[in-house]
Amino acid sequence: MEKYLVDINSDLGESFGAYQIGQDDAVMKYITSANIAAGFHAGDHNVIARAVKMAAENNVGIGVHPGFQDLQGFGRRLLHVDPKEIYNLIVYQIGAVQSFAKLFDQELSHVKPHGALYNLAAKDFQRAQAIAHAVYDFDPNLILFGLAGSELVKAGEAVGLQVANEVFADRTYQPDGSLTPRREANAMIEDPKQAVDRVIRMVKDGKVEAVDGSDVSITADTICVHGDTDAALAFVMELQQGLVKNGITIKRVGK
Amino acid sequence: MEKYLVDINSDLGESFGAYQIGQDDAVMKYITSANIAAGFHAGDHNVIARAVKMAAENNVGIGVHPGFQDLQGFGRRLLHVDPKEIYNLIVYQIGAVQSFAKLFDQELSHVKPHGALYNLAAKDFQRAQAIAHAVYDFDPNLILFGLAGSELVKAGEAVGLQVANEVFADRTYQPDGSLTPRREANAMIEDPKQAVDRVIRMVKDGKVEAVDGSDVSITADTICVHGDTDAALAFVMELQQGLVKNGITIKRVGK
Amino acid sequence: MEKYLVDINSDLGESFGAYQIGQDDAVMKYITSANIAAGFHAGDHNVIARAVKMAAENNVGIGVHPGFQDLQGFGRRLLHVDPKEIYNLIVYQIGAVQSFAKLFDQELSHVKPHGALYNLAAKDFQRAQAIAHAVYDFDPNLILFGLAGSELVKAGEAVGLQVANEVFADRTYQPDGSLTPRREANAMIEDPKQAVDRVIRMVKDGKVEAVDGSDVSITADTICVHGDTDAALAFVMELQQGLVKNGITIKRVGK
Amino acid sequence: MEKYLVDINSDLGESFGAYQIGQDDAVMKYITSANIAAGFHAGDHNVIARAVKMAAENNVGIGVHPGFQDLQGFGRRLLHVDPKEIYNLIVYQIGAVQSFAKLFDQELSHVKPHGALYNLAAKDFQRAQAIAHAVYDFDPNLILFGLAGSELVKAGEAVGLQVANEVFADRTYQPDGSLTPRREANAMIEDPKQAVDRVIRMVKDGKVEAVDGSDVSITADTICVHGDTDAALAFVMELQQGLVKNGITIKRVGK
Repeated sequence: MEKYLVDINSDLGESFGAYQIGQDDAVMKYITSANIAAGFHAGDHNVIARAVKMAAENNVGIGVHPGFQDLQGFGRRLLHVDPKEIYNLIVYQIGAVQSFAKLFDQELSHVKPHGALYNLAAKDFQRAQAIAHAVYDFDPNLILFGLAGSELVKAGEAVGLQVANEVFADRTYQPDGSLTPRREANAMIEDPKQAVDRVIRMVKDGKVEAVDGSDVSITADTICVHGDTDAALAFVMELQQGLVKNGITIKRVGK
Repeated sequence: MEKYLVDINSDLGESFGAYQIGQDDAVMKYITSANIAAGFHAGDHNVIARAVKMAAENNVGIGVHPGFQDLQGFGRRLLHVDPKEIYNLIVYQIGAVQSFAKLFDQELSHVKPHGALYNLAAKDFQRAQAIAHAVYDFDPNLILFGLAGSELVKAGEAVGLQVANEVFADRTYQPDGSLTPRREANAMIEDPKQAVDRVIRMVKDGKVEAVDGSDVSITADTICVHGDTDAALAFVMELQQGLVKNGITIKRVGK
Repeated sequence: MEKYLVDINSDLGESFGAYQIGQDDAVMKYITSANIAAGFHAGDHNVIARAVKMAAENNVGIGVHPGFQDLQGFGRRLLHVDPKEIYNLIVYQIGAVQSFAKLFDQELSHVKPHGALYNLAAKDFQRAQAIAHAVYDFDPNLILFGLAGSELVKAGEAVGLQVANEVFADRTYQPDGSLTPRREANAMIEDPKQAVDRVIRMVKDGKVEAVDGSDVSITADTICVHGDTDAALAFVMELQQGLVKNGITIKRVGK
Repeated sequence: MEKYLVDINSDLGESFGAYQIGQDDAVMKYITSANIAAGFHAGDHNVIARAVKMAAENNVGIGVHPGFQDLQGFGRRLLHVDPKEIYNLIVYQIGAVQSFAKLFDQELSHVKPHGALYNLAAKDFQRAQAIAHAVYDFDPNLILFGLAGSELVKAGEAVGLQVANEVFADRTYQPDGSLTPRREANAMIEDPKQAVDRVIRMVKDGKVEAVDGSDVSITADTICVHGDTDAALAFVMELQQGLVKNGITIKRVGK
C-alpha cells in the first residue's frame, strides 16, 4: 500500500458558446479529478458534452462543479440564496452533468462547489449542510470536495459522505487554516519551487506555514491546479514531478 | 383487458422565479402524464423540485419537456440549432429533471419536446432523429411523445423507442394530419362538447375530420390538455367524464 | 401654492416574455411616477415599450427602476457587485428605458433602484454614491428616489441631484427610521385605514410612530404603492381619497 | 475634395464578464467606425463602457451592433422574431450603448445589425424595415450599415436614413451580389494581397468579380475587418497601406 497519496483536481468545462476559457485538453493529462461546470456560472450543454468525453477518455474522475446562476460574474460574486434553494441548484447541476456521464457509461465521482459558493460553504455551516444533503440525497457514493478543514468538509462528514480536503499550491494560509483573501498583497505564492515544496509538506507532514510564520495543521487529500495559461500548465508538470520524486503517489480520491 | 386506452398529458412546471404560470396543483389531479419544463424555455430548479414532488404524490408519470434556450420567447420561436446541439440540449434537460425524480425514487416516464422544438421535430426528420437518439442514449425505456403521425414519432420508432402519438382536443387538423397553424381563423375548436366528441372518435375510430371535411386517420395515444385557466380546468373535467362514459380507460402510457 | 404635496409611485413593467406580473394599466391611473424595470431583474424590450407608452399617455413621470442582473431572483437577492460595476449597470439600464421615452418625445423624470439594490443603497454609502454618480453623469436633471433619510438620499444630495424621500404606507418603521425587515412579524401594516392615517401624518407632520412607540422624524416626498392585486388597487384608491380629503395635493415630484 | 473615400469598421465590445473575445485596443487604431455589441448576443455593461471610452479616445465612430438575444449562440443563429419585436430590441440596444456615449459627450454615429439579424435583414424587407424604422425613430441622423445592395440598405434609404454599403475583403460574392455562404468551399479569400486588390477595385471601380467569373456592380462605403487574431490585425494594416497607396482616403462615413 502506498504511504502517501494525493489527488490532483482542476476546474474544467468553463467555456460558453463562442467564448473559450481554459486548455481543457492539455490539463486533462495531468490531473486525476475534473470539476466540470454545469451551465450556471460557466459551461453549456455542448461544453459539458466535450469535457465529460475528454475526462472519460483520460480516465479522469468526472466531478460536478456547481455554482451560483451568475454567468456574467462567472460565479465569483456572493449571491444571497437561502439553503433550500441552494439544495435545489446543486441537485439540478449534478443532474445536468450526470446525464452526459451516463452517455459514456461513467459514474460521477465527486462534487466541488465553485467560486463564491465554495467560499460561502467554507464558512456557513447551514449552507454547507444544504450542499452536503443535496449531494448525499442524489447519490451517497459521491465524494464532496471542500476547502481543507472547512465547514463544507465538516457538513459532508456529518451527513455521511466521503470528503476530500482540498489544498491550494499557489495560495497562502492564515493561522486559522483559511486562505488569505486574493485582494491582500501576500495572498499568492509566486515561486513555483516554493509552491511545490509547500504541497509536499502538506501531503507528507500535514502542515503548512501560515503568513505569520506559525505552522497550521492541514489535511491534503486533493490539490487544485489551473490550466488556463501556459505557465499554469508548466507548473502542473513541475508539481507532478516533485510529488513523484518525493514518494507521493498521485491517485484519484476514492479509487 | 381494456378495449380503449388513452393517456392525458399536460405541460407543467412552467413558472420561473417570481413569475407564475399555470395551476399545476389543480391540473395534476386530472392527468396521467406531466411534461415538466427543464429551465431552458421555462421552469427553474425550484419549480422543477415542486413539480416533480407533486407528480410523484399524484402518481402521475414524470416526463421531461425540453425546449430551446429562449426564456424570453417561452421556447415558442424557432431557433436554428444544428442536430448535434439539439442532441446535447435534450440530454442536458433530461438530466436536470431526472435528478429531482431520483430524489423521490421515481423513474422518468417520457420526454415531450416543447413549442417550437416540438413543431420543428414534427417536420424535420434529421432534428427529430437527434432528439430520438438523445432520449434513447440516455435511457431506452423512456417513451417519446410527438405529434400523432409526425416525423418525431417516426424517428422514435426507428431508433427503437416506445412512442406516444399525441392529439389535441382544441385544435383543428389539416387533410395531411398536421395541425392548422394558430394564426389561421379556424385553428381552434371553441365548443367543449364538440372537442370531447372529436377526441372520443380519435381514440375509438382512429379518425378525425379535417378542416376540408375529409376524414384523416390518426392514432391517439395521449391527449394534451392545459391547466392555465379555469375554463381549461373545467374542460379537462368534462373531457375526463366524456371519455369514461364512452368506455375509454384513462391510463398512463406504458403502464 | 399648495401647502402639502406628495407624489405616488409604483413599480411597473415587471412582466417578462410570456410571464405577466402586475396590473400596469389599472395602477397607472392613480400614480404620478412610474418606476419601469429595465430588463435586468424584470421587464424586457417589449414590456418597456408598453409601459413607457402607457406612462406617457397617462401623463405619469417615466422613471427607471434598475436592479441587479438576477431575473430568477427578481432582483430581490443581494449580489456582491463592486461600486464601479454598479455605476455601469445603472447607466446601461437608464439608457435602455430612456430610448423608449425618446420615441414618445418624453424626458425621463427619475431613477429608483429596485429590491436588493435599493436596500443595499439605503445603508452602503459607497454603493449609494456609485448610483448617484451614474444618474448625475447621465443627466443631472433626473430625480433620485431613495428610502427616506437613507444613505442613497444623502449620496444623491451630495452629488447635486434633486432627491425624493420615499415612504411606505404598508410597512412599519424602526426607531432609526429604517424599515422593519419583512421576515419579522410586525413588519406590515395590515389595516388600510391605519396605513392611510400614517401616511397623512408623515406628509403633514413629518413623523411616523416606530414599532417601539417612539416618534421618528421622516420626510415623505413620495409614497410607494403596489398594483399587483385587486386589494392593492383598492388601497391606492383609498389612499388617494384620504390624502385629498386631508388637504394634501398629489403631484409628481419635480413638476 | 478627395476622389475616393472609404470607411473601415469592426465589431468590438464582444467580451462578456470573464470571457474575452477580440483585441479591441489593437484594432481600434486602424478603423474609423466601431460596432459595439449591446449585451444581447455579446457584451455587457462593463464591456460597453470600456469599448465606448476607447472609441472616443481614438476618435472612432461609435456605432451600435444589435443582435438577437442569444448569448449562447453569439447571435449567429436565426431566431424567428416578428418585426414589431425586432423594432423594440433595436431601440433597447441603441439606448444601452448611447447612454455610455453620452457619458463621454459623444454622439452615436451608426447602427449595424449583427450576425443572423444582419443576414436576415439583407433579404427580408419587412424585418429590414423594422430595423430602419427603429433607427430612424430613435435618431434620424444615425447612419445604417448593411450589406452592399441589400434589403437593409434599401429599407434604410426608403425611410430617409443615410446608409453605408458594407463590403467584405475576405469573402467571395455570388453573381447577384450576395455573399457566398461560409459553409461553401470557396466562400473565403485566403490570400491577403488578392483581398486588398479586390477591395481597391470595389472602391474605385464599383465592381467585384463573382465566383462564376462575372463582374458584379457593388458600392463600397465601408469595409468590415476583424481584430480577433494576429493575422487579422496584420491584414488590417496591409489593407490600410494598400488603400492609401492607391489614392483612397480612409474616412469615417458621414464625416
